[in-house]
Amino acid sequence: MPRPSPTGEAPRRGRPGYDQETVLRCAIDLFNRRGYDGTSVGDLARELGLTKSAIYHHFPSKSYLLQAALSEALDALAKVIDTAVASEDGARESAYQRLESAVRQSVEVLVEHLPAVTLLLRVHGNSEVELDALRRRREMDAKLADLVRAAAEEGSLRSDIPPDLTSRLLFGMVNSLVEWYRPNGRYDTAAIADAVTRLAFEGLALRGR
Amino acid sequence: MPRPSPTGEAPRRGRPGYDQETVLRCAIDLFNRRGYDGTSVGDLARELGLTKSAIYHHFPSKSYLLQAALSEALDALAKVIDTAVASEDGARESAYQRLESAVRQSVEVLVEHLPAVTLLLRVHGNSEVELDALRRRREMDAKLADLVRAAAEEGSLRSDIPPDLTSRLLFGMVNSLVEWYRPNGRYDTAAIADAVTRLAFEGLALRGR
Repeated sequence: MPRPSPTGEAPRRGRPGYDQETVLRCAIDLFNRRGYDGTSVGDLARELGLTKSAIYHHFPSKSYLLQAALSEALDALAKVIDTAVASEDGARESAYQRLESAVRQSVEVLVEHLPAVTLLLRVHGNSEVELDALRRRREMDAKLADLVRAAAEEGSLRSDIPPDLTSRLLFGMVNSLVEWYRPNGRYDTAAIADAVTRLAFEGLALRGR
Repeated sequence: MPRPSPTGEAPRRGRPGYDQETVLRCAIDLFNRRGYDGTSVGDLARELGLTKSAIYHHFPSKSYLLQAALSEALDALAKVIDTAVASEDGARESAYQRLESAVRQSVEVLVEHLPAVTLLLRVHGNSEVELDALRRRREMDAKLADLVRAAAEEGSLRSDIPPDLTSRLLFGMVNSLVEWYRPNGRYDTAAIADAVTRLAFEGLALRGR
C-alpha cells in the first residue's frame, strides 16, 4: 500500500514524496510476499505510485535494496551477538547469563525488524548479496555455538546435548517467530521473550521439581 | 538428477522408465529449489529427461503434484498427532507422555519426509491446494495446543506460559529442522529427537539441580 512521506511535506522538485526508508519498507514487504525474483523495480514503482526512475533516485538497483534489507537484519542481530561474546573479557556476567541475554535480545530484534529478518531467513544464496548474507549468518551461528559451549564448560548448561545442536534448536525456536508472530497480536515482545527463555532454559516439565 | 525405474525393467510401451514416485520426488526437489511458481511441467520433464506428456501420464497437472507432495507431509504429521490425541480415551498414558511422543515422532516424520515437509512449511496459500494445506496445518496446531493445555491441567507441564505459545515454540523448534538438518549429517534421528525433547521438557539450565 502506498504510504505518504512521513514528513507530510509536498514533494520537492526532483525528489518524489517518498523517502529512502519508505521505498525500502515497501520493497521488503513485496520481496516477502512475492519473492525477490518475483518482484521487479517496476512492481515496486507501481506499488508506491512512482516512476522507476524515482526508485532509482533512492537505490541504484534491486540488488542494492535487498542488500539494505538484509544488512538491517544482520546488523541488528550481529550487535546482540557481538555484545554477548565481547563481555567474555570483562567476565562480569557468566556465559550462561550472556547466552540468556542473547536469546532474549534476539527475540526483541526479530519483533522489531520482523520483515527484514523474515527476508533474511528465506535467503537461499542465489546471488552474491545472498551468499554474503549466508556467510554472515554462519559466522553468527558459530559465535552462538561457542557461547553455548562456554556455558556448558562453566557448568551452568547441560552438556549432554552437543553445543552446535543446542544452538541450532535454541535459535531455530527463536527464528520460528517469523512464521507465526503477528504485530499487535495477543502477546507482546516481553511475553514472548519470557516464554522462550523459560521453555529453553528451565524446560516445560514440572515433574520432579 | 534422473533416476532409473526402481524395478530395473525396460520401459513398457506408453510408459516411460520412471514411476509415479520418481516423478513426485523430482517435482518436490524442484519446487523446493526453484519455488512452485518458478517450476513448470516442462522443467520437470527436462530434469527427468522425459516428454511433458510422459509426466502427464502420471499426474494430471502441476497442482496435482503439489497436492500429492503436501498430502505426504500432512498425512504423516496427522497420523502422529491423531495418535497422540486419540490415546486420551484409553488414558493409559498421561497427556505429558503423549505430548512428548508427539514431539519425538514429529522429529522422525520431518527427517523421513524432509523434502515434502520443507515444501509444506513454505506454503503461503497462493492456491486452493495451498489454502487447504494451511487449513490442515491449523487444525493440527489446534490439536497440539489442546494437548499442551491438557498436560498443564494434569499438573505435569508448566502453566505460566500460555499453551498456544508453548505449542508454537515447541513445534517451531521441531520445524526448524528443515532449515539446517541434512541427511547423512553428524547426528542421526534419535540424537536429534533426544536433543529436542531434553531441551524442551527438561531445559538447558543445570543451575539449582
